[in-house]
Amino acid sequence: MTSETCAPRFSPRFSRRIAGLEASPIREMLAIIDRPGMISFAGGLPAPETFPDMQQLAVPPAALQYGASEGDPELRQAVAAELNALGLACTPAQVLILSGSQQGIDLVGKLFIDTGTPVAVEAPTYLAALQVFRYFGARFTTLDPNLPAAGLATDERPAFAYAIPTFQNPTGHCYDAAQRAALARACDELQVPLFEDDPYRDLAYDACERTPVCARLQRASWVYQGSFSKSLAPGLRLGYLVASPDLLTPLVRLKQAADLHSNRLSQWYVLGQLRDAGRPARIAALVEIYRRKRDHFVQGLERYFSGLADWQVPPGGLFVWLKLKAPLDTRQLLPAAIERGVAFMPGEPFFPERPAGCGALRLNFSHASVEQIERGLAILAELVAQAGSGAGVKGTLPVAR
Amino acid sequence: MTSETCAPRFSPRFSRRIAGLEASPIREMLAIIDRPGMISFAGGLPAPETFPDMQQLAVPPAALQYGASEGDPELRQAVAAELNALGLACTPAQVLILSGSQQGIDLVGKLFIDTGTPVAVEAPTYLAALQVFRYFGARFTTLDPNLPAAGLATDERPAFAYAIPTFQNPTGHCYDAAQRAALARACDELQVPLFEDDPYRDLAYDACERTPVCARLQRASWVYQGSFSKSLAPGLRLGYLVASPDLLTPLVRLKQAADLHSNRLSQWYVLGQLRDAGRPARIAALVEIYRRKRDHFVQGLERYFSGLADWQVPPGGLFVWLKLKAPLDTRQLLPAAIERGVAFMPGEPFFPERPAGCGALRLNFSHASVEQIERGLAILAELVAQAGSGAGVKGTLPVAR
Repeated sequence: MTSETCAPRFSPRFSRRIAGLEASPIREMLAIIDRPGMISFAGGLPAPETFPDMQQLAVPPAALQYGASEGDPELRQAVAAELNALGLACTPAQVLILSGSQQGIDLVGKLFIDTGTPVAVEAPTYLAALQVFRYFGARFTTLDPNLPAAGLATDERPAFAYAIPTFQNPTGHCYDAAQRAALARACDELQVPLFEDDPYRDLAYDACERTPVCARLQRASWVYQGSFSKSLAPGLRLGYLVASPDLLTPLVRLKQAADLHSNRLSQWYVLGQLRDAGRPARIAALVEIYRRKRDHFVQGLERYFSGLADWQVPPGGLFVWLKLKAPLDTRQLLPAAIERGVAFMPGEPFFPERPAGCGALRLNFSHASVEQIERGLAILAELVAQAGSGAGVKGTLPVAR
Repeated sequence: MTSETCAPRFSPRFSRRIAGLEASPIREMLAIIDRPGMISFAGGLPAPETFPDMQQLAVPPAALQYGASEGDPELRQAVAAELNALGLACTPAQVLILSGSQQGIDLVGKLFIDTGTPVAVEAPTYLAALQVFRYFGARFTTLDPNLPAAGLATDERPAFAYAIPTFQNPTGHCYDAAQRAALARACDELQVPLFEDDPYRDLAYDACERTPVCARLQRASWVYQGSFSKSLAPGLRLGYLVASPDLLTPLVRLKQAADLHSNRLSQWYVLGQLRDAGRPARIAALVEIYRRKRDHFVQGLERYFSGLADWQVPPGGLFVWLKLKAPLDTRQLLPAAIERGVAFMPGEPFFPERPAGCGALRLNFSHASVEQIERGLAILAELVAQAGSGAGVKGTLPVAR
């Protein structure tokens, strides 16, 4: 049979949750930024020159067999040691190795969310977390460390609060000590479990408070997660979560049901990297590369976007959040930008309420070269100026088809 | 903070589905079979001597970057070519690379199952599939290729039928041509999507029909999945699914939400193996190792279990399904067996209805050495004879704690 001749006559019945499962703008974007010559400010792609050298690998046969759902014991120990040094007290038994930290979002969604379950999120926040929580049926409520009780004291207590306190995606913001204390206090007082997502922690360009908020909790349950995608390489698909003991048993069972256990080739390789005496120097070099890219990027913004937009210089991470002075729907800008060879991520999908237009866009500064940054920002600024003046932009390709 | 001093005061509210999430007997068993000296007939562990040599790897930097959710294009092409050669017509665009075929079970569960959704399964069947489907809320109905309409013509049409037609887990059974035709016809006539799980396909010791049932479908939607865990190595955590075009879009979105994409190190390595001219010889050698193990195992069964049990000689795969003449709850046998250094998998968790006692157990023959097979079967037979005679067995350790 072939798919052409034998198209099914009746539509299969999908689960009700599938109706809420939208195309991911990230996925759509990945196809676009692969086009030759495209200047990409869109993804969160690390710079390939920061990847480790993997030319002389000798994988031990033990790494090829089935392993434990929790992860390899030595890797869990190494992760726990790193987290304790960071100020988050935990034992290796609390560590669960993940197939990338996106998987932690799926597992926590499975753990907590039924149809209609309230979940507190920052606005804007990581769009693929919104996508997963929405699929499981979440109703979004407010998380804002500047509001009383961090905005969590609503009519119905959220099942958990999801936050990216350090170099947030998409804003690049880093919670200061007062904001961290406020969020921890609110979670403790209202008994709201905290899900702290911390993939950018190592990419710190300026001095700032980075101790996990979970380390300040006294009573609330918590899940903290980290990733090796930014400090090592995303193709390894390896991350981890650490959780308060009350959440561990169901999380391990969900992990086993999801994919038995994480890739042991990557686990073996990452363990070697964590034990490597050269690791701090490697991360310092990587941070220096990204710091310079950020500085070039911000200089470019000053050159081309003064008067057109506002932004904060991100103290770490991979993104600048550009707030246009004209309240444009930035999805409308994208087709013309792509036509002229520049990709960026429109701001709207990062908001839980999916606004019609938010006048903001997310720009990644880690992947493009210095020359591409210069050229790309000049093109973007021209398009924004045209659109803001009502001249309109060319092109019709929608961001999410 | 430490987990000791700051135990949460209130229990977090989990999703309703979590209540149905039981401990996996496989996970529990993995801890037991790691004990030194334990003879394990329990897991589905491949023999380490069949693993490929990975001593001279030179990973290209491109394999370290983020990749497509569907999988690397060249690997999808190679998988499609292999499946077409097997008789399952498909295009590379229909292939989705998975983080092991357990992930396919999670994705298909997410695609179809709401609370109360009927799902047709063989009895017995792969217990971790039952675990996942149960978590999503499935109500199990019958799939039996020997019944009229393969047992699918029930009051309510199942959302899909899950089958392992080739070297079934746990029975080792291989559907003959008539059974394959009957299942395909029933799915077509009743418009029941077929989810065919085929991880043992390459481990064929005797001639038998192995063309996928999905290749016979004319109208029904389908998902076919395979694995590299048995033919290469499980630590690579790599599998794939191929689906009818109507199911592809939501499956790719679910994959992206689950873990963005599969490990690119493993994808790169497996692609090299699929292109290696030595692959057919490698699989033939591996099949020969397992055939010999199976033959030793069956000889051992004849020596020790004649009169105590019945079994079919499995034409492929990794398991013998041993049906005891005494209708014992084989979970009760396990503690004494483990005390004497032999692990096996009780039969009860493989049944959707979770019977109190099924008088059957699953024995893996691929992992233990020839000497261990001999000694382990002798011990098991002694315990079965004692239990069957009412003498009882020692020990109290339950299989699922």
